[in-house]
Amino acid sequence: MRFGPCGGSGVDRNALADGLRGWDMSDQRTPNAAESLCFEAGIKFGTLYHQFAGTPVSPASAPSLATAMEEAIENQPHCQAVTVEVREAELERAIADGAADYVELTGRFLEVEIVVEDGDLEAVARMEMDEGYPLMQLETVRGVADDA
Amino acid sequence: MRFGPCGGSGVDRNALADGLRGWDMSDQRTPNAAESLCFEAGIKFGTLYHQFAGTPVSPASAPSLATAMEEAIENQPHCQAVTVEVREAELERAIADGAADYVELTGRFLEVEIVVEDGDLEAVARMEMDEGYPLMQLETVRGVADDA
Amino acid sequence: MRFGPCGGSGVDRNALADGLRGWDMSDQRTPNAAESLCFEAGIKFGTLYHQFAGTPVSPASAPSLATAMEEAIENQPHCQAVTVEVREAELERAIADGAADYVELTGRFLEVEIVVEDGDLEAVARMEMDEGYPLMQLETVRGVADDA
Amino acid sequence: MRFGPCGGSGVDRNALADGLRGWDMSDQRTPNAAESLCFEAGIKFGTLYHQFAGTPVSPASAPSLATAMEEAIENQPHCQAVTVEVREAELERAIADGAADYVELTGRFLEVEIVVEDGDLEAVARMEMDEGYPLMQLETVRGVADDA
Repeated sequence: MRFGPCGGSGVDRNALADGLRGWDMSDQRTPNAAESLCFEAGIKFGTLYHQFAGTPVSPASAPSLATAMEEAIENQPHCQAVTVEVREAELERAIADGAADYVELTGRFLEVEIVVEDGDLEAVARMEMDEGYPLMQLETVRGVADDA
Repeated sequence: MRFGPCGGSGVDRNALADGLRGWDMSDQRTPNAAESLCFEAGIKFGTLYHQFAGTPVSPASAPSLATAMEEAIENQPHCQAVTVEVREAELERAIADGAADYVELTGRFLEVEIVVEDGDLEAVARMEMDEGYPLMQLETVRGVADDA
Repeated sequence: MRFGPCGGSGVDRNALADGLRGWDMSDQRTPNAAESLCFEAGIKFGTLYHQFAGTPVSPASAPSLATAMEEAIENQPHCQAVTVEVREAELERAIADGAADYVELTGRFLEVEIVVEDGDLEAVARMEMDEGYPLMQLETVRGVADDA
Repeated sequence: MRFGPCGGSGVDRNALADGLRGWDMSDQRTPNAAESLCFEAGIKFGTLYHQFAGTPVSPASAPSLATAMEEAIENQPHCQAVTVEVREAELERAIADGAADYVELTGRFLEVEIVVEDGDLEAVARMEMDEGYPLMQLETVRGVADDA
């Protein structure tokens, strides 16, 4: 727990690992503004999914949940807009197949778009089902990072 | 919900927004491999924080929680290593100040490092307290993205 | 993990524990309908709190979150009504004290009432702050359990 | 949000509702110690399920997650013991059927027993799959509530 495979003893340990892997430390660098903004986009997606996955949801309660998810995540830094669509047909199918009149929220019931901004930079990310897996993908980056 | 400020009607609507903002569509582009990897690093951080925030935690249960957090997040794609340190002194202080012999997990009790990899690319991100706020930051990027 | 202090090997082990503790098995019984309904009330409270604790919340997003919490939990079996009030003054105070313009949802920002029903039985439970701890309490039970 | 179907205006409103339903206020009473303990058992189950549902889990990480779940919930008041068993065959089947080498934790992968105590009272509750639904049930109550 305290000293996992990546952590704890700093430069020497990393240098050793680099040596073993044939890497040159000289290519380690501070991230540019576009990379940092893409990191922010990822935080929003991980937050949205893992804060709300498991919530009891039915066709009647889906709209209020979608709105709450959008407004909650839009609080986070650099988050310009969040759009959550509940896939109603999929939700109704799952309820028809199940033993209750609601289900737990999971990725198969969602399509999500998140837009983050930092100055002139913008990144757009999306979650959609891809062969049964809720795939989160960075879709576009726009603008020129000064330090890129 | 269905048609938030960023979404729904696609290119025309974006083009309109771009026009209003004086932007040129020509700078919108597919993300490069380093940007996509930084997005992945962000997903891991958002997941770790919002999956486990709120968990009842005490000095006795902190080690098993830290281990579970590390091993859970390491399941995710591209995640090479996760290191979770519980700030024990802070935890003991909070319990001494409170009415119960445990508290809910929140960022003030954690230091986290996450390493993600994709081919020759590596990104390292970290969460530490910064003026009372659990700041998640992308720290370093290493390697050359072929398509950068 | 697999065989914790309470579980696994059934009657013999329990009987042994009972013997050690001087207990008589004869007082172990099937719960009555009122007890089962009170168990249901507790499930709703644990769900509400631990599903939504950690959600980013601001004065602007608090109403949609409160509505989503109510409608989500009302999906659960026997749940007749959920009322979530966000303590706005406390929320504004926490934001003024912090480094961001939102905070993570926790019990200090909530007052919650949950009513569960089963036939003629009704139970009411409430969560309120009590000396800094978000105390969940069963408040009243109404009706006569046939099997009580 | 503020004034849901069950709340807000107190006795008068309830009395009105009682009148409409033909109920007598005289059967509304303070819960006895056994009912309050069953409420506590429910809180633990709702907490366990909704805190950890959605966690990325694989056969390799399941043991640490199960241990963390047990130790986290055992922090809560009156919680004497929590036993979490991960249904490994079900987990391996789901991973074989899916697109990734892990899945999100949900009730189909769990069997849980929780024991709560208060003085001489003890309640045991269990979660098991029942026709595809993770059913949480209060199983036994033991001991005599002084005020029952």
